Amino acid sequence: MVRPIRAALLAVGNELLSGRTRDVNLHFLGGSLNRWGLPLTEARVVRDDLEEIAAAVRELLLPGTLLVTTGGLGPTSDDITLEGIARALGLPLRDCPAAAGLITGRYSSLGEKVPEGALKQAVLPEGSVPVRNPAGVAPGVVLTALGGVLISLPGVPHEVRELFHSCLSVAGIVETGASGFHVRTWGIREGDLFNTLRPLQDKYGLSPAYLPSPGRVDLGFDGPGAPGFRDTVVSLLGRRVYSLEQDRTLEEVLGIELKSRGLVVATAESCTGGLVSAGLTGVPGASEWFAGGVSVYSNASKTRLLGIPEQLIRARGAVSGDVALAMALGVRDAFGADCGISVTGIAGPAGGTPEKPVGTVWIAACSGPRTVSGTWRFGGTRDTVRLAAVSSALGVLLQLLREDR
Amino acid sequence: MVRPIRAALLAVGNELLSGRTRDVNLHFLGGSLNRWGLPLTEARVVRDDLEEIAAAVRELLLPGTLLVTTGGLGPTSDDITLEGIARALGLPLRDCPAAAGLITGRYSSLGEKVPEGALKQAVLPEGSVPVRNPAGVAPGVVLTALGGVLISLPGVPHEVRELFHSCLSVAGIVETGASGFHVRTWGIREGDLFNTLRPLQDKYGLSPAYLPSPGRVDLGFDGPGAPGFRDTVVSLLGRRVYSLEQDRTLEEVLGIELKSRGLVVATAESCTGGLVSAGLTGVPGASEWFAGGVSVYSNASKTRLLGIPEQLIRARGAVSGDVALAMALGVRDAFGADCGISVTGIAGPAGGTPEKPVGTVWIAACSGPRTVSGTWRFGGTRDTVRLAAVSSALGVLLQLLREDR
Repeated sequence: MVRPIRAALLAVGNELLSGRTRDVNLHFLGGSLNRWGLPLTEARVVRDDLEEIAAAVRELLLPGTLLVTTGGLGPTSDDITLEGIARALGLPLRDCPAAAGLITGRYSSLGEKVPEGALKQAVLPEGSVPVRNPAGVAPGVVLTALGGVLISLPGVPHEVRELFHSCLSVAGIVETGASGFHVRTWGIREGDLFNTLRPLQDKYGLSPAYLPSPGRVDLGFDGPGAPGFRDTVVSLLGRRVYSLEQDRTLEEVLGIELKSRGLVVATAESCTGGLVSAGLTGVPGASEWFAGGVSVYSNASKTRLLGIPEQLIRARGAVSGDVALAMALGVRDAFGADCGISVTGIAGPAGGTPEKPVGTVWIAACSGPRTVSGTWRFGGTRDTVRLAAVSSALGVLLQLLREDR
Repeated sequence: MVRPIRAALLAVGNELLSGRTRDVNLHFLGGSLNRWGLPLTEARVVRDDLEEIAAAVRELLLPGTLLVTTGGLGPTSDDITLEGIARALGLPLRDCPAAAGLITGRYSSLGEKVPEGALKQAVLPEGSVPVRNPAGVAPGVVLTALGGVLISLPGVPHEVRELFHSCLSVAGIVETGASGFHVRTWGIREGDLFNTLRPLQDKYGLSPAYLPSPGRVDLGFDGPGAPGFRDTVVSLLGRRVYSLEQDRTLEEVLGIELKSRGLVVATAESCTGGLVSAGLTGVPGASEWFAGGVSVYSNASKTRLLGIPEQLIRARGAVSGDVALAMALGVRDAFGADCGISVTGIAGPAGGTPEKPVGTVWIAACSGPRTVSGTWRFGGTRDTVRLAAVSSALGVLLQLLREDR
């Protein structure tokens, strides 16, 4: 099989065009394909219409192209992507026993009967290779045709994320740019990162891809650069680097750090309302280093569950360094943990004041006798402020632990 | 000018294809165009390449179509959308005095000199009508050609929002009504929904779009159907319908229900680790009806924070109906709330047993003297199981409250 050199995306679904659903797959796939050395040259969104799907496949699946389709693999009558592909390529549709096995296996692992109609998802264009979907029923599909490679994924974003790399691997496409490297950072704005790195870029001629998410920016460098370049980048960014591994999340890195020291953490959250705890417990095996957390949204609950004196809250305000520190220490005691993290702030859209505008967040952490407490200012919507606060809360404890080496 | 009957979108920009920028204009424009009676039938994203832009314009600007382009109207060398349009339509580019007036007016209103190169944005295909951009410099462009209408907008999302309606009005396009409806459900699998609705679909000929996310499926119907159709759908799906409003989340609906009754809820989570609490506090104003929550990941913390007897956990197991109920009642007491929700289960990937395989989750809720506790079985990855459990936990309390009318 010839390795494709570029990629195209075809997203299928009326709901993407009607404003009912926001497509997020283009952004994820565009970035991923780029890192795999397969730049996306065009993307199209078409309706659940057989002729429109077939026409787009014919126009996009060119020699040397990897065409990724999303959507329309499910069991319902508007799921017709594979039929459109078969029509475009002049291939018959066949019952695929391997796909049927994946589907029945999925249901039996749930202890359920295969519902009527589910095996429609095992009817594939001749020559297709089905790929197990760890997050849903419909298998991914890999097909070589017209000098290109076609990968069909479901439309649900988390299924796309779970399936995409397996499909690339089934298609025999391996990552290029393995000579590049990644630097994952927390707590620095993209613009500040850019200004910090600009002199290096001018000197070494290597400019990274900036991949921001709230409170975190991943830097992807395409090549290794001159000897010492990576070390220079890392030492410039200092304690705000949490990992050099592309797939390691901040939550995982903190978990590994805690586990390696035999420590257990507890969390106390006001404006983030459980997001720190939810993020940490998203890591498999978190129970080894996570005791639990509280979401203390009201002042009364801060007093009731964490023993924070009412007078302190009245005197300093719930969004203050003293209350943040009392929360971190209080939750550590409440759970009998070794470390504590706390977040208290104003996520908006309401609740801001001139002294404490929306986006003001206090974050504290403690580990043994060491404590730290600081104020942060995040921009954006309620969601963005909350997610950025989570990143900083995790980063603050990670930094406290790493300094204690 | 003939009123178009459908629309197409052409987004121009390398950054949209490389994963550097997330396109949000498709979602906004798709929804807006739908409400204006101009359903979007196709969307394309192409690079900043003259031939690619021109080819896409030629293919998309058909008689009866409104083609909206976004991006590439600025002053820099990669802003070439209007040049591509001129090439596609065989029109010369001309200095447009009206556009130059809008640009110089913009700078003078800011008390600034017109920067070098800014008047490049006043060079338009012959026949273009420029439209004032209240949020930026580059004017919008309206052009009638090939039996269709073309509107060119900048790529910056807030400029798109500010300019789009003015451009429609300049093009003489007035709003029509939308006739479809939405049914948002929780706790029913997509396949089961499909089988439940299939007889109706056969009878009424209206088949919805199925939009699944973990533990929830939204149904979008394009038209109103026969009289009584919507009511029939809703009564068939019964208590699993949480809203008929397209933009209302399950978290918001539960918040509205609690607030309208003057009730406050608290949450106790094991496998979901704070996700229920995080979801509820994502709703602005949640403090009016959300007291707080605990993430009690270890058995010791269930005893310590919620007073659940160790013997109960030993006898029944942490993942059991009795412990779930004790958690819901315990957290209500701990926060002095009116209602409680609890989740305890096995999210995987490890921890499953033959009796309680990965995906087994107990969910309980209480409100006043009424309690409910039940077991659920979710498929998929750790993330999917956790998110589906959140949906059911919210749905279970919503149903308990609604039954108490």
